[in-house]
Amino acid sequence: MADRDVKFDVDRIDRIGIPEAILCEGKSPEQIIAGIDQALRAASSVLLTRLDPDLADALSPVGLDYDAQSRTAIAGTWNPPSDDPVVAVVAAGTSDLPVAREAARTLAFGGVASREYPDVGVAGLWRLLEIRDELCTYPVIIAAAGMEGALFSVLGGLVPGSIVALPTSRGYGVCRNGEAALHSALASCAQGIVAVNIDNGFGAACAVRRILNGKNSR
Amino acid sequence: MADRDVKFDVDRIDRIGIPEAILCEGKSPEQIIAGIDQALRAASSVLLTRLDPDLADALSPVGLDYDAQSRTAIAGTWNPPSDDPVVAVVAAGTSDLPVAREAARTLAFGGVASREYPDVGVAGLWRLLEIRDELCTYPVIIAAAGMEGALFSVLGGLVPGSIVALPTSRGYGVCRNGEAALHSALASCAQGIVAVNIDNGFGAACAVRRILNGKNSR
Amino acid sequence: MADRDVKFDVDRIDRIGIPEAILCEGKSPEQIIAGIDQALRAASSVLLTRLDPDLADALSPVGLDYDAQSRTAIAGTWNPPSDDPVVAVVAAGTSDLPVAREAARTLAFGGVASREYPDVGVAGLWRLLEIRDELCTYPVIIAAAGMEGALFSVLGGLVPGSIVALPTSRGYGVCRNGEAALHSALASCAQGIVAVNIDNGFGAACAVRRILNGKNSR
Amino acid sequence: MADRDVKFDVDRIDRIGIPEAILCEGKSPEQIIAGIDQALRAASSVLLTRLDPDLADALSPVGLDYDAQSRTAIAGTWNPPSDDPVVAVVAAGTSDLPVAREAARTLAFGGVASREYPDVGVAGLWRLLEIRDELCTYPVIIAAAGMEGALFSVLGGLVPGSIVALPTSRGYGVCRNGEAALHSALASCAQGIVAVNIDNGFGAACAVRRILNGKNSR
Amino acid sequence: MADRDVKFDVDRIDRIGIPEAILCEGKSPEQIIAGIDQALRAASSVLLTRLDPDLADALSPVGLDYDAQSRTAIAGTWNPPSDDPVVAVVAAGTSDLPVAREAARTLAFGGVASREYPDVGVAGLWRLLEIRDELCTYPVIIAAAGMEGALFSVLGGLVPGSIVALPTSRGYGVCRNGEAALHSALASCAQGIVAVNIDNGFGAACAVRRILNGKNSR
Amino acid sequence: MADRDVKFDVDRIDRIGIPEAILCEGKSPEQIIAGIDQALRAASSVLLTRLDPDLADALSPVGLDYDAQSRTAIAGTWNPPSDDPVVAVVAAGTSDLPVAREAARTLAFGGVASREYPDVGVAGLWRLLEIRDELCTYPVIIAAAGMEGALFSVLGGLVPGSIVALPTSRGYGVCRNGEAALHSALASCAQGIVAVNIDNGFGAACAVRRILNGKNSR
Amino acid sequence: MADRDVKFDVDRIDRIGIPEAILCEGKSPEQIIAGIDQALRAASSVLLTRLDPDLADALSPVGLDYDAQSRTAIAGTWNPPSDDPVVAVVAAGTSDLPVAREAARTLAFGGVASREYPDVGVAGLWRLLEIRDELCTYPVIIAAAGMEGALFSVLGGLVPGSIVALPTSRGYGVCRNGEAALHSALASCAQGIVAVNIDNGFGAACAVRRILNGKNSR
Amino acid sequence: MADRDVKFDVDRIDRIGIPEAILCEGKSPEQIIAGIDQALRAASSVLLTRLDPDLADALSPVGLDYDAQSRTAIAGTWNPPSDDPVVAVVAAGTSDLPVAREAARTLAFGGVASREYPDVGVAGLWRLLEIRDELCTYPVIIAAAGMEGALFSVLGGLVPGSIVALPTSRGYGVCRNGEAALHSALASCAQGIVAVNIDNGFGAACAVRRILNGKNSR
Repeated sequence: MADRDVKFDVDRIDRIGIPEAILCEGKSPEQIIAGIDQALRAASSVLLTRLDPDLADALSPVGLDYDAQSRTAIAGTWNPPSDDPVVAVVAAGTSDLPVAREAARTLAFGGVASREYPDVGVAGLWRLLEIRDELCTYPVIIAAAGMEGALFSVLGGLVPGSIVALPTSRGYGVCRNGEAALHSALASCAQGIVAVNIDNGFGAACAVRRILNGKNSR
Repeated sequence: MADRDVKFDVDRIDRIGIPEAILCEGKSPEQIIAGIDQALRAASSVLLTRLDPDLADALSPVGLDYDAQSRTAIAGTWNPPSDDPVVAVVAAGTSDLPVAREAARTLAFGGVASREYPDVGVAGLWRLLEIRDELCTYPVIIAAAGMEGALFSVLGGLVPGSIVALPTSRGYGVCRNGEAALHSALASCAQGIVAVNIDNGFGAACAVRRILNGKNSR
Repeated sequence: MADRDVKFDVDRIDRIGIPEAILCEGKSPEQIIAGIDQALRAASSVLLTRLDPDLADALSPVGLDYDAQSRTAIAGTWNPPSDDPVVAVVAAGTSDLPVAREAARTLAFGGVASREYPDVGVAGLWRLLEIRDELCTYPVIIAAAGMEGALFSVLGGLVPGSIVALPTSRGYGVCRNGEAALHSALASCAQGIVAVNIDNGFGAACAVRRILNGKNSR
Repeated sequence: MADRDVKFDVDRIDRIGIPEAILCEGKSPEQIIAGIDQALRAASSVLLTRLDPDLADALSPVGLDYDAQSRTAIAGTWNPPSDDPVVAVVAAGTSDLPVAREAARTLAFGGVASREYPDVGVAGLWRLLEIRDELCTYPVIIAAAGMEGALFSVLGGLVPGSIVALPTSRGYGVCRNGEAALHSALASCAQGIVAVNIDNGFGAACAVRRILNGKNSR
Repeated sequence: MADRDVKFDVDRIDRIGIPEAILCEGKSPEQIIAGIDQALRAASSVLLTRLDPDLADALSPVGLDYDAQSRTAIAGTWNPPSDDPVVAVVAAGTSDLPVAREAARTLAFGGVASREYPDVGVAGLWRLLEIRDELCTYPVIIAAAGMEGALFSVLGGLVPGSIVALPTSRGYGVCRNGEAALHSALASCAQGIVAVNIDNGFGAACAVRRILNGKNSR
Repeated sequence: MADRDVKFDVDRIDRIGIPEAILCEGKSPEQIIAGIDQALRAASSVLLTRLDPDLADALSPVGLDYDAQSRTAIAGTWNPPSDDPVVAVVAAGTSDLPVAREAARTLAFGGVASREYPDVGVAGLWRLLEIRDELCTYPVIIAAAGMEGALFSVLGGLVPGSIVALPTSRGYGVCRNGEAALHSALASCAQGIVAVNIDNGFGAACAVRRILNGKNSR
Repeated sequence: MADRDVKFDVDRIDRIGIPEAILCEGKSPEQIIAGIDQALRAASSVLLTRLDPDLADALSPVGLDYDAQSRTAIAGTWNPPSDDPVVAVVAAGTSDLPVAREAARTLAFGGVASREYPDVGVAGLWRLLEIRDELCTYPVIIAAAGMEGALFSVLGGLVPGSIVALPTSRGYGVCRNGEAALHSALASCAQGIVAVNIDNGFGAACAVRRILNGKNSR
Repeated sequence: MADRDVKFDVDRIDRIGIPEAILCEGKSPEQIIAGIDQALRAASSVLLTRLDPDLADALSPVGLDYDAQSRTAIAGTWNPPSDDPVVAVVAAGTSDLPVAREAARTLAFGGVASREYPDVGVAGLWRLLEIRDELCTYPVIIAAAGMEGALFSVLGGLVPGSIVALPTSRGYGVCRNGEAALHSALASCAQGIVAVNIDNGFGAACAVRRILNGKNSR
C-alpha cells in the first residue's frame, strides 16, 4: 500500500542527466522501501539521503551501503569512481564535514571523484593560501562553511573555477542555523559565487553534475 | 583626491579570469571616474553596474556606452560578441527583464553571447514547454524570476545544463523584495539549482563565466 | 472540573455549516474528554485533530477511530462517505501525505469523498501533466506541498477549479518550517490561488466545505 | 521591439476560465501597450492592474476606462455586470477600500456583480452584526482588512459561505505592511478561512471566479 | 556558594509595591534555594515561576505550594485572597489556561482575587457576548489568547476597563510561537489595549497590580 | 458619496468610555470630511490623528485646531483640561517628542491633563533619578523611547504606578524602526510594564483613559 | 521653548570620559540650536552627527565646521589632532567611506589621530596583505564593511590588536541594509572581534575612546 | 584518520596573541582528541569550549580540567592567574552566569584574572549603583545580560572603561533567544558599547585579550 504513496521519477536521469534520490526525512520505512523497489526496477542502484542511524537500522534487511557521518546510503550495486579527482570539496571547519561528505558521497555515487580539503577556515589564512595553486586546477569547488561563511569570499578572490557555496547550520546566536553563512555567500564581494540551501550537500553535488553535464555541449 | 579612495583590482582578471567592475551605487562621480582611470590604465575597457540615469548624465564627459534598462555602462573600447549564443537567459515576466539584461550585458562585455527568452512564467506552461528542446542544448541557463519563483523548479526538471537562479525583487507583500523567489530557488525540489543574490544580474553572469572558465580544465 | 475549562461550541454547525472540532495539542486528557462529552451530547460524533499516539493511547477507553498518520480521531458513530470523490487532494511529495490525509479525513468526517494524488512534484512534471484532464473535472483541489511549493503555481495554470494551497513544513534551511512554501502560494504568478496555514490540513478541508456550502446559494 | 518582451497568454481563459491581466508595475508604457495589443487581438477587452495615475496618463492615447482609487483600467470594450450581486466585499476600514475596489473591479470585468460593505471593523461590532443575516446569503465573501485583521475571525464564526481574506498593508509598526493581518487570517481560530497575498485584490477576485467556475461541476 | 550567585531584591516591594519573584528557568536548585532563603529572611513568602515538575520535585524538601498547570509555587506561608474578584481573566481557548492561571496565581499571591472565563474564543462569539455585561463591571481584564489573537480586539470594542493582552504561544505555522497573537494585540483596531510578552502571565498580573496601586493616588 | 465609505462609530464613547477618532493616513480629504461630519452630528468635537501638514492644509476650510509636531487636529469645539496633571509623559530623547505629544494631545482632548518630562534617557541617569520622587506620585506614566528602550526597565524598577511603554521608531540599523525598543519593553526584567504599538501615542493615551475609567469601579 | 525639549548631559565627559554629541536626525533646527547652546555653555565645542546638508544649511548662522561626506559638524572652537595616528580605519569598499569618515571625524574631535586605509576588500586579498605589518602596529582598528563583511574575519586572523567591526548598509538583496555584514562580524570564526550598530561610525569611535581611556588604568 | 579532519592553527598565538581553542559542538570525540594532540604538540595546554557533560565523560581518559557550569575544559598543564583582577565580569541575572563564567574561564586560561559581579539587573538599580565606583577602576568590563539587556546602557552611562556586551539567550517570547538583548547592546543610547555574539563568553574574553594586547603598543 505504501507503494501507492510513492512515484519514483525513473526517467529523470534521461531528462536531466541526474537520477532522482530518496530523501528519507519524513518518510516511513515502508515508503522508503517502496521507493527503493521502484528505483531498482529501472536502475542498478539508488541514493538515499538524510537517513538517520535508527531508520538505517530499520532498513538493514534491504542491504544498504550506509555512511553514518554523511547520513547517506546506497541501495543496489555500484562502484566508487577512480582516484583522479575532478572536484575539490573544501570545508571551513571540522564540524562542516558531515555536510561536505554528503556532497562527496553524492558525487561518488554519480561516478565523480572528489578530494576533500578540511579545516581551512580564514582565521588561519595560511591553511587556504598554501593550497591555492592546487585549488586553481579544479574546474569546480564545493565550499562548505557555517558561522559567518567568510571562506566563500576569500576563495572567490583566489581561484578562477566555479565555486558552489554550501552553507552549513554550524554556529549559534546570529548564525541562525546557517542563515548568516548563506547570506555571506549571496552577498559576497567576490564575483560569481553561487549558493545552494543550508546543509544541502546533495544539492551542491547535483549542481556540480549539471556543470559537468555541460562541459561537452556547445 | 578621490583617487586615494579607490584601489581598482587590475590583476583580478589574471587571478580569477574575470575583471573587477565598478558598482556605482554609493559612489560619487569623482570616485567613479577615478575607478575608470585606474582600470583603463591596465585594460582597454571597464564595466559599470547599477548606474542610474542621473549619475550616467553626470559622467557623460567620460564617454560611456550606456544602457538605461540594465543600468550598465562600458567605458573604453569594446566589441560585442558574435551572434552564436552559448548561454540562455530566461525571464519569467516582462518586468524581470532589467535584471536579466544586466546579466546579458555583463556576459557580452566578457565576450560571451547569450539569447533572451522573455515572459515564460509557469502560469502559461506551454510558453516554456515549446522552447524546452532548444533550452536543453545550452550548457548553462540564467533564469530570472520574481514573485514566487516557480520557474526555477520547473526548469530544473526539464533541462540537464546548469541553472543559475536569478531572483528578482518583482512583486509585493510576501514577496519581500525577492526573498520569496530566492527561497524557492534554494529550497527547490528540482536537483542542482544554484542561486545568486536578489537582482544580481552581474553576479549571475560572473557565475556563468566561472563555469565557462572551467570547461577546458581537468 | 476539567469540564469548566471547555465550552464546546455545539451550535457552530448551525451557524456556519461546519461543526467545531477538538484540537488536542496543548490540552490534557481530561479536557479532551470533557470536550468529547459536551460534543456528543449535541451530535453523534466529533472530530479530534493533532492527536499524538501517546495521547491517543491515554484516551483509548473513550473508544476512538484513530488514524496515526494524520493524527486524527473520531469519537462517536459515523459512516465514511461514498466512493464518488468531489475533491482532489494532490501532494507534491510522499512526506506531505500526513498533512494531506488530515485534510482527507476531515472531509470524510463531513461526508465529503475525496481522492488522493500523491507524489506529483514538479521536478517530474509528467506526473502532474498526465492527470491534468482528470484534475480539471474537480470543482476544488487541495494541493499539499512543502519545500519551495512550486506545485501551487503550476497547478494554477492548468486547472479552472478552486485551488486551496496547503503548505507543509517539509524541508530544511530556507524552507523555514513551511514559510517558503506558504510564500510561494501567496505570491504565485498563477491567478486565484488561496492558502491556509502551514500544516493545516483540517483548515483546508473546512475551506472546501465552505465552498461546497455555497454551491447551492444565489 | 517591446513586443518581443511580452508573451500575453491568450489561451488562459480557455485553460482556467480566467483571462490573463496586465500587471503594470515594473513595465514600461511600450511594454504595456504591447501587452494590450496582443490581448485585444484575441479578446474584446483586457484588464490592467496596479496602474499608477502618471503611467495611466502616459497610456491615455490607448483609450482606457481608468479608476484611480483601485488603480485598475480596462482597455477595449466591455459592459459592467447586472446589479444583482453574488459576492460581498467587506472592508474593515475606510482605508482598506482601494484594495477592496481592486477586487470589485476585477469581478466586474469578469461579469460578476458584487456589493461593498465598507467600514465594518470589529471595534464597532454592531456594524458587522447588523448585516450578518444579509452576509449569510452570499456563497462567497471577500474580506479586506489591515492592522490586526480580527475581522476575518469574527466573520468566520458568523457566516457559512467561503471567506477569502484579503489582508491590506494599512497600519504601522508591528503591522509590518500587512503581515500581521495576513497572519491573523492564516492562524484564525475560525475554521476554513483562506487568504491571498497582501493588497492582492486582483487575486481575491480571481479566487472567487475559481469558486464560481466550480459551481456547476460534479 | 550558590548564595553569592543571587542578590534577591528584598526592597522591591517598598519601591514599586510588588515583590521580586524567582524565575526558575535557567537556575540550579541550589540557586533557587538561595533565592528563597534570602527572600524569606525579609518577607513571609515568595513566589516561584516557570518551575517545571522535575525541578519542583528536587525542591520538595523546601516545602512548596506547587501548582503544576501554571508551573508556579509559593514558598513560606500565605493566605489566598477573598472570593470577591476585582479582575477578570479571560481565555480564548482551553490550551491558553496554563498561562492564564500563572496570571491568576500571581494575583492571588499578591492578595488580589480574580475570576476565570475560559474558552471564549471569537469563533463562537455568543460565548463572549453573553458575559459582556459582567465583564463591563471589572476595572481591568487580563485576556489570554494564542493563534490569531482576535479576542483582544473584539473585547476592546465591548468593555470600558483596562485590557491587558496576554498572548500565548498556542498555535503552529504562522503563529510563530505567539508572535501573531502579540502583533494582533499591538496592532488592534480597538483603542487602548496594552500587551505583555508572550506567555508572560506573571507580567500581566504585575501590570494589574500597578493599575491597582494607582487607584488611590492623585 | 465618500459618506458611504465611512461609518463613524458614534456610540463608542458609551460602550467603552473613549470616542472613536479619525486616523487620517490612507484616507482622502473627502472621506475625512465625511467622518468629521458624522462625528460632529453626535458630539461637539472629534480628534484626528496622523494628519500630515499637506492634508491638514487641504482640510483647512473645515476649521481645525492643528498641531504640526504631533500631527493631530481637533475639529469642533473643545476646552483643554486644567493644569493639574494626573499623567506623566516621559521621553527618552528629544526626537521621541512628536510621538509623546500625540499621547499628550489625545489625553488633553479627553480632558486629562498631563505633564511632559523630556530627554531623560538612561545614558545620563541623573536626569531620571532627580525626578524619581515626583514620578512616584503619578498613578500612570507614559514612557516614550526609541533606540534600545532601556528607559522602560529602569523606570519600572523605580516607580509603583502603571507604566505604558510607548516605543518609537527613532534609531537606525538594528533598531528596525522601533522593534528593538518594543522588544525591550516586552522582555523587560522590571515587572508589570505594558506596551502599545510603535509610534502609537494615541493608543498609549487611550490605554491611560481605560485605566482612569476603572479607578472608580469595584 | 525648544530649550525645554533638550537636556544636554554636560557632565558626561566627567563620568565616562567622552562628551555627549547631538544626533541631528529627528530633531528640529531649534532643538539642535538649543542643544548647541547648552553644550557650549559647559565646553568649548560640541559634535553634531547625522546632519543632512539641508539641515546644515538651515543651521549655517550658528557657524559650523561641516563635512558633507560624513554628515558631521563641529560647533565652537577646536583643533584637529596631530598627524601621528594611533588608530587605523580600514574600509572594504569605496562606498563604505562615509561611515568610516564619521568614525575618523569623531576620533579627531576627541583629539585622537587616525589613518584611513580605503578599498581593501578581500576579493583582492593582496590589498590587505600588503598593509598587514603596518596594521599590526595599531592597538585598535576600526573596520568598515558592508555586503557580506568577510573583511572582519580575515583581519581578525592577521592582527593582534582590537578590531571594532563597523558594518555598513552598503549592498542589496540579502544584505538587508547591513544585517548580513553585522551577522558576519558577530558570527566570525576569528576570535575576539566586537561590533557596533550598522552605520554607527560615531559609536565605533566612542568604543575606541573607551579602549584608550583604559590604557592607563590598572 | 580523524587527525586528517583537523588542522589546529598552532601559530595563531604568534599572529594575534591568542591561541586557537577547540569548539567541541559538532565534533566527534576522535576529532576533539586529534585537536588536543595537535595543540599539545606545540603548547603546554589548550582550551575546550561548549563541551557538554556527556562528551566530557567520553573524553575523560584524556585528563581534562572540566567545569560543568561554563562547559569549558583545559587539557594539558596550566596555572590559574593571580588574584588581582584586571577585568570585571558583570551579570544581570543568576541565569546569565554560565555564559559569564565561560568568559571568566577563558580569561583565566589566558592568564588574566577577573572578578564576578552577579545578579545586578537594573530592576534593582541600587545593586549596580553601589558598585559603580569599583567598576570605574577597571579598564574593561564584560557585561552579560539576557532578556531586554538594559544593563548595557545603564552601565554605559556610568563607567569610562570599555564595555563588552555579552548578550545571553535567557528569556522567552520576544527575547528570541538573545536577539532582543543583542539589539539593545547595539542600539544603545550610551556611547561606545561593543557587542559579541549571543552566548559567546569565549569571544568576549578574546576581545578583552585584544584590548589588553594593545595596552603597550603605540
